[in-house]
Amino acid sequence: MTERVYNFSPGPAVLPVPVLEQAQREMLALPGVGSSILEISHRSKAFLEILAEAEANLRRLLGIPANYKVLFLQGGSRLQFSMIPMNLLRDSGKTAEYVVSGSWGEKAAEEATYEGEMRVVWSGKATNYDRLPAWSEVPRGPRAAYLHITSNETIQGVQFAADPDSGDVPLVCDASSDFLHRPVDIGRYGLLYACAQKNAGPAGVTIVVVRDDLLDRAPKSVPSMLNYAAYAKENSMQNTPNTFGIYVFMLITRWLEGEIGGLNKMLEFNRAKAKLVYDALDESGGFYRGHAQRPFRSLMNVTFRLPSDDVEKRFLAGATEHKLCELKGHRSVGGIRASIYNAMPMEGARLLAEYMRDFARRNG
Amino acid sequence: MTERVYNFSPGPAVLPVPVLEQAQREMLALPGVGSSILEISHRSKAFLEILAEAEANLRRLLGIPANYKVLFLQGGSRLQFSMIPMNLLRDSGKTAEYVVSGSWGEKAAEEATYEGEMRVVWSGKATNYDRLPAWSEVPRGPRAAYLHITSNETIQGVQFAADPDSGDVPLVCDASSDFLHRPVDIGRYGLLYACAQKNAGPAGVTIVVVRDDLLDRAPKSVPSMLNYAAYAKENSMQNTPNTFGIYVFMLITRWLEGEIGGLNKMLEFNRAKAKLVYDALDESGGFYRGHAQRPFRSLMNVTFRLPSDDVEKRFLAGATEHKLCELKGHRSVGGIRASIYNAMPMEGARLLAEYMRDFARRNG
Repeated sequence: MTERVYNFSPGPAVLPVPVLEQAQREMLALPGVGSSILEISHRSKAFLEILAEAEANLRRLLGIPANYKVLFLQGGSRLQFSMIPMNLLRDSGKTAEYVVSGSWGEKAAEEATYEGEMRVVWSGKATNYDRLPAWSEVPRGPRAAYLHITSNETIQGVQFAADPDSGDVPLVCDASSDFLHRPVDIGRYGLLYACAQKNAGPAGVTIVVVRDDLLDRAPKSVPSMLNYAAYAKENSMQNTPNTFGIYVFMLITRWLEGEIGGLNKMLEFNRAKAKLVYDALDESGGFYRGHAQRPFRSLMNVTFRLPSDDVEKRFLAGATEHKLCELKGHRSVGGIRASIYNAMPMEGARLLAEYMRDFARRNG
Repeated sequence: MTERVYNFSPGPAVLPVPVLEQAQREMLALPGVGSSILEISHRSKAFLEILAEAEANLRRLLGIPANYKVLFLQGGSRLQFSMIPMNLLRDSGKTAEYVVSGSWGEKAAEEATYEGEMRVVWSGKATNYDRLPAWSEVPRGPRAAYLHITSNETIQGVQFAADPDSGDVPLVCDASSDFLHRPVDIGRYGLLYACAQKNAGPAGVTIVVVRDDLLDRAPKSVPSMLNYAAYAKENSMQNTPNTFGIYVFMLITRWLEGEIGGLNKMLEFNRAKAKLVYDALDESGGFYRGHAQRPFRSLMNVTFRLPSDDVEKRFLAGATEHKLCELKGHRSVGGIRASIYNAMPMEGARLLAEYMRDFARRNG
């Protein structure tokens, strides 16, 4: 087998090795089934059990109340940017309100304009998305259909550390890049969604957790394949879902419960990993300059600059030699981005911190 | 390893063993990359090479002319049922025309009504979808935005054996369940689409081949994630595509070119397999009653009834004992359906035919 590297990709991203090993073992035939997970009908007993376990495990991990539906969709978060206003804004006579804290929030807000009135109630653009609002800074409109936030901005590396309280307005949250990294009070959210390819599986599955009173808001003009209620009614099986993606997601929920011990433990682990990297950054005497202001630093994506583009290039080249890969920042921001999602081992974060200290010493 | 069965599932469906074996070997780390295909960025060099090879192989296999784009989307054919009229019908002042030859054609036609005027120009419903129209039977409207057909109806088992000629009206074809089973004259089609989970991979990827003059027909009201032109502009990478699904699709195109020797050979092979099963049916003296009229029989899905529900149940139970699995017909039609897609080995078709003969002898 080819040797594995430490993969700091922002997504698709590192997955737990035991999950990959089980998918590998079962690739030719699921035990007791005799066909691959890639080959079995979505209506087969074997797949229905996988789907049911995926949902049950997720409900236990997040403590999802009974009045919330769990949906497994396709199309990534980008399709949710459209589905949310189609279902919750179109023909409502209300306004969709967006907290724009980074590149993904910007894109989400823009898509809402296709369906109705959109208002940006807070934007971090003036300071290049290096901070987040205090909850008291966010104005509330009297006619809000919903309030949309992005819990973690993957590109800029800013993250809400706690669950906001939006009062009577349904809170809609894009949790794509920090889903399942800590416990969440689902009761505060009207709809929480995440594409899988950071903490929850391969690209091609999107998980939506939605309070059931929001399901009947879509007007009749919304086609069934873009309608949450239609998916809820058919238990995510209006058509063939991404069966393999759901299978890997199910294996990840098992890993989170079994190997990790739940989301409180996961958060401890994520804090310890992030501390390793941020400490190396903070102790560099300004050689590394973090993008996010300290109180808003992401536990998932550590973003920073080096003294020059040239030094950054050497940093990246040297990192790859140490098997520390995919550390280049997003093209819109530049610099370095170390994505240290749930499945990044402690050893990966430790080796990165060590490399950062060593590189700063030799180049500072 | 668990022993494999012969899997006659209508989809997700049997895949080539060498493809599964390669996916298994590389599950922990792609050679030279050090991460799993599930973990690498869609913008990484490794994935861009996979995507480029998938497209190049498909273009060679189907002889796709240069003025056609190849798109890799999500959401299955069901989302195409909506995207097609959004892009080609909405605000056009024209009429979408549908040949309805089975259950999938029905669903496709229904979704068009969300976007504009829809007209069924031919329907096989009166005879329970057991036949297809002669091309001269299909009336042409002067205001057609496009004409939609379903090349193979998975549930009823009726299939167009040749590429229709729709003249100046763009021909839109749902080829989900017979994609890549034979050579196709792409030049006759305006848009040809297929979900992957029959002949082209796991569920969660949809392949769209579209003539480039159709890309600019979508009005501005169509959101980018539902707009063909937006996908074409970004080479299917507006957002993260189903990277694993595209990888498996690429492996399947290699198998079709290398192991099978191209689509003419694939068609020969599929004809031989289908003959084995239909011969067993025809020689049963009426014990097995085929659903489709002979000239319209599908090479992919063989549908038939037995003398009674009770006998059908025993047929299915006995088949499973012989490792011939997933032969139950769709709930809307009943009976038996043997799906014998590209990857079904000749031996599977031979064993099924043998079992059918034996069962008829003992129960006829």
